[in-house]
Amino acid sequence: MKQLTTDAQGVFVIAVTPFHPDGRIDMESCDRMVDFYLDAGATGLTVLGMMGEAPKLTVEESRDVVARILKRVDGRVPVVVGVSAPGFAQIDALTTMVMDLGAAGVMVAPPGSLRTDDQIIGYYTQVAELIGDVPFVLQDFPLATGVQMSSGIIARIVNDLPSCVCLKHEDWPGLEKISYLRREGVLNKRISILCGNGGLFLPEEMARGADGAMTGFAYPEMMVTVVEHYTRGEPDRARDLFDAYLPLARFEQQPGMGLAIRKYTLAKRGIIAHDALRRPGAALSEASRREVDQLIIRQEQRLKELN
Amino acid sequence: MKQLTTDAQGVFVIAVTPFHPDGRIDMESCDRMVDFYLDAGATGLTVLGMMGEAPKLTVEESRDVVARILKRVDGRVPVVVGVSAPGFAQIDALTTMVMDLGAAGVMVAPPGSLRTDDQIIGYYTQVAELIGDVPFVLQDFPLATGVQMSSGIIARIVNDLPSCVCLKHEDWPGLEKISYLRREGVLNKRISILCGNGGLFLPEEMARGADGAMTGFAYPEMMVTVVEHYTRGEPDRARDLFDAYLPLARFEQQPGMGLAIRKYTLAKRGIIAHDALRRPGAALSEASRREVDQLIIRQEQRLKELN
Amino acid sequence: MKQLTTDAQGVFVIAVTPFHPDGRIDMESCDRMVDFYLDAGATGLTVLGMMGEAPKLTVEESRDVVARILKRVDGRVPVVVGVSAPGFAQIDALTTMVMDLGAAGVMVAPPGSLRTDDQIIGYYTQVAELIGDVPFVLQDFPLATGVQMSSGIIARIVNDLPSCVCLKHEDWPGLEKISYLRREGVLNKRISILCGNGGLFLPEEMARGADGAMTGFAYPEMMVTVVEHYTRGEPDRARDLFDAYLPLARFEQQPGMGLAIRKYTLAKRGIIAHDALRRPGAALSEASRREVDQLIIRQEQRLKELN
Amino acid sequence: MKQLTTDAQGVFVIAVTPFHPDGRIDMESCDRMVDFYLDAGATGLTVLGMMGEAPKLTVEESRDVVARILKRVDGRVPVVVGVSAPGFAQIDALTTMVMDLGAAGVMVAPPGSLRTDDQIIGYYTQVAELIGDVPFVLQDFPLATGVQMSSGIIARIVNDLPSCVCLKHEDWPGLEKISYLRREGVLNKRISILCGNGGLFLPEEMARGADGAMTGFAYPEMMVTVVEHYTRGEPDRARDLFDAYLPLARFEQQPGMGLAIRKYTLAKRGIIAHDALRRPGAALSEASRREVDQLIIRQEQRLKELN
Repeated sequence: MKQLTTDAQGVFVIAVTPFHPDGRIDMESCDRMVDFYLDAGATGLTVLGMMGEAPKLTVEESRDVVARILKRVDGRVPVVVGVSAPGFAQIDALTTMVMDLGAAGVMVAPPGSLRTDDQIIGYYTQVAELIGDVPFVLQDFPLATGVQMSSGIIARIVNDLPSCVCLKHEDWPGLEKISYLRREGVLNKRISILCGNGGLFLPEEMARGADGAMTGFAYPEMMVTVVEHYTRGEPDRARDLFDAYLPLARFEQQPGMGLAIRKYTLAKRGIIAHDALRRPGAALSEASRREVDQLIIRQEQRLKELN
Repeated sequence: MKQLTTDAQGVFVIAVTPFHPDGRIDMESCDRMVDFYLDAGATGLTVLGMMGEAPKLTVEESRDVVARILKRVDGRVPVVVGVSAPGFAQIDALTTMVMDLGAAGVMVAPPGSLRTDDQIIGYYTQVAELIGDVPFVLQDFPLATGVQMSSGIIARIVNDLPSCVCLKHEDWPGLEKISYLRREGVLNKRISILCGNGGLFLPEEMARGADGAMTGFAYPEMMVTVVEHYTRGEPDRARDLFDAYLPLARFEQQPGMGLAIRKYTLAKRGIIAHDALRRPGAALSEASRREVDQLIIRQEQRLKELN
Repeated sequence: MKQLTTDAQGVFVIAVTPFHPDGRIDMESCDRMVDFYLDAGATGLTVLGMMGEAPKLTVEESRDVVARILKRVDGRVPVVVGVSAPGFAQIDALTTMVMDLGAAGVMVAPPGSLRTDDQIIGYYTQVAELIGDVPFVLQDFPLATGVQMSSGIIARIVNDLPSCVCLKHEDWPGLEKISYLRREGVLNKRISILCGNGGLFLPEEMARGADGAMTGFAYPEMMVTVVEHYTRGEPDRARDLFDAYLPLARFEQQPGMGLAIRKYTLAKRGIIAHDALRRPGAALSEASRREVDQLIIRQEQRLKELN
Repeated sequence: MKQLTTDAQGVFVIAVTPFHPDGRIDMESCDRMVDFYLDAGATGLTVLGMMGEAPKLTVEESRDVVARILKRVDGRVPVVVGVSAPGFAQIDALTTMVMDLGAAGVMVAPPGSLRTDDQIIGYYTQVAELIGDVPFVLQDFPLATGVQMSSGIIARIVNDLPSCVCLKHEDWPGLEKISYLRREGVLNKRISILCGNGGLFLPEEMARGADGAMTGFAYPEMMVTVVEHYTRGEPDRARDLFDAYLPLARFEQQPGMGLAIRKYTLAKRGIIAHDALRRPGAALSEASRREVDQLIIRQEQRLKELN
């Protein structure tokens, strides 16, 4: 089975968890979503992320979702699974479970109680010890976790822990972190840097040395195209396309509401059957649905002009 | 099976989760601990509370601990189980599991993301709907959860939700909340108020109208005695005893470190076999162990003088 | 002197505080900035906001800046002054000072310690009592203050306190709040709603019923045009222009770094002499300066295409 | 004028700010309070601390209070003044003002926005540069500031900045920090460690190597006696006295309410004329007043038994 490595690049789409209106997991939509993401050019998938409503699933459901997605992916791309949990026993159990199922690696966000550099280092050292040689993604997302990791601390974690192969870069602002980690002599290995924040800073992130994106957005093709054009040395074309999608991307990037917007759009595009969120979850008002509809119309218009 | 009711009173001891030094759960110590708590006069037990290292257990381990403790208790006193979790699916699954095992009710703390009154009310309304007629304890512990519930909001939850039968009162300061909730006309039913904070304000809480304590402390007999003397109308005797235990109780009430102190003391008293905490968990320094030893010597001295 | 009223509309630009490289206030740039904002179509100014580096000024400096700006404005538009402070004595002293100088009203953000609805209501009630008949702007900016006010609480404040004439709307997401406050029967008076967040949601906010913007952005003409076109019933034209500025607006909206970007741009445009921030303040890296330069080039290109 | 040095020891009482019932500063009570603290054995005073309601004073009032207290102290003991403020200009202005008036040094708490080690170090380095050779006290009070400084970071600040002469130690739990800072080789100079938290851990803190206390408590004589007995090598006598005061000390240590309790007690003892707090400030309920009264009666009883 494919393991996640420091060479990860492109777009790892953060998968949503599709539900039926009554709250049951919608497995058929899972399959369709996987096909759609891979067709759109995803080079990997990430499941059970914060945006995947992971904490709302029971352990059994988590296992079922991961198993279903892995089966559908069928080894075509690596699949990373979020295993953040309050205790090490849970992280350990989840990691063993998903690696047995065929995951390529796991993603770990810091618990909100961590404050000092020592606490952060200590935490990841213990995690790495716990999960052994399973490759892991370090998630740096202060807006959601409340934990601020300096560039220096991220470098120390990467340098100390060989199994830390990828940074999910989601600080805001975070561009200087990329530049710092790409500076000669800072890291003892080149790791993969995949960026978050719904792709909202993707052009600048690529220019600073990121390897791609690991985030959601109902039009993953935008992220795929931006990364490809940057990789090919066509930043202007990348930006033209980025700008066309930006009004909607900005709208989807509203905290709390963003997932509802993403699911509404994915459902509208026929990728998932329902836009249902499991409770507790923000419902999308009628007005917001109309706003999304309008943004999509304008977006299609603009894309037509560009081609 | 005994259900928790609004008549709950006395001392519901928050049970620790005993571990072997290698991190496995120590089931023999569980039994001994149950016997000790009941012998000390506990009128109930609460397991999988925050202090019980609940988030460090896997779901299977949680079930095993609850089952073991319930078996040992054997219906002698009601057992409340903490089921706080990030998502409703998890709360639902845990509640069903522990009620099937014979628990008397569940305890729910608010997730840290709740801020406004509407959000708090909305959350507990959904929880109550979810767990149906299972009686629940509302945990008000701002220092740990970061969620501040006004007296008025607590009253609204109690009045709106018949299955809310007990308040675990752990605000600091929180004495005015007790007085408010005991005021004529505030509540449409008299609920049980059991206090936390390691018993550090128990005399004042009893005088304000609390029904007892629901908290830990390595000498639960202190809490039992204080509650009994207050109930019998002997506040001075209650305070004399309280004061004798206060230097140690104060020391045990250090956030983060408190559980290590409690386990060290319980192990020293021969109640649990090891003072091990599961990782991540603060270790007790040699200096702190000596400090506890000294406090216990002085405490015994003082108790002797009182008798 | 013009007082702020519930009729406030258009764009109240949040003024920056220009400094010399050595940290002294640059009064000449203040004048030039005022002229520029008014020429750009600002219908009001707001000074000593959080973005104005207000907390870095001494009381004497605050007075000097306000006096200078008011003198230059010379009654052409109303000027609102931020007076948020930890204690009522300071709010009182600042309010008296700036109203005596000729301000049109004051703006008050909630102190970070407020949590429950009762605390928030209590705070603003005391503030309103303190400042008497001075009209005030309620600042709702949870990302910066940490205080979450529900729509219902904002309505209560507006309804209870006649001197609350305007909401600086800066929740994120916050569109539903506008719709709620514009719903028939919610408020007992129609207040002014001016939006923040760097104008990043201005088209949607106008469509929901906002009266304009009260925020910064180095191209205030964007906000002025968007508001004007919406007011005139030309939403498509408004959106075309908005979209052209969005890539830069998005870049400027990075927390912490945003003010440095704004000052860099204002200096580049020749409006203020230096882009200096007073310490403590984030410096803009060379890479970020180039990113802004590039965004401006593309923005000018796009605007040319639109005309 | 006496400067604060690394030799500071004994008890620096945190002075309250006495008010008249109408909110004006009560200067006569200031004088009486100074006399009382010095008679009780205080070796220093700290004014405009968080507990001194400093943020509720205007700049002019702060100056008047400091001037009055310094005049009354008349050089008998060093006086430290809290100068924490959101911006460096304010810290600078306050420091210059109070040092000119004759203060012995200043105290600086970290602003709540600091998170990483780098940010904390950076902040104090800038502060030290700003205030030049004025000796300063580093305030480590996470419960109130939200900023967690590891032992290592405190050591770095002390070692890097010669003007950092004293640590106001107020972490909870914080005993290991004292032990760490007293370990051979950790610091390049021996600094003064004065402890906070209302004296609630004073015996253990002294045993770990603290030099005394810098905190409030309506019976400063308790702290003076405990420090003296520890210094003289009579820990048991120190603890006997400590235990007698502990029930009240515990009660006074309720966050938010503590200052109201302290002022009520000081007024009851005839030291300040009124127990008024300036708004916004928690009022003490009638029930709480009675609780304090009772605790004082029991405390006096217990002290009589000890003599």
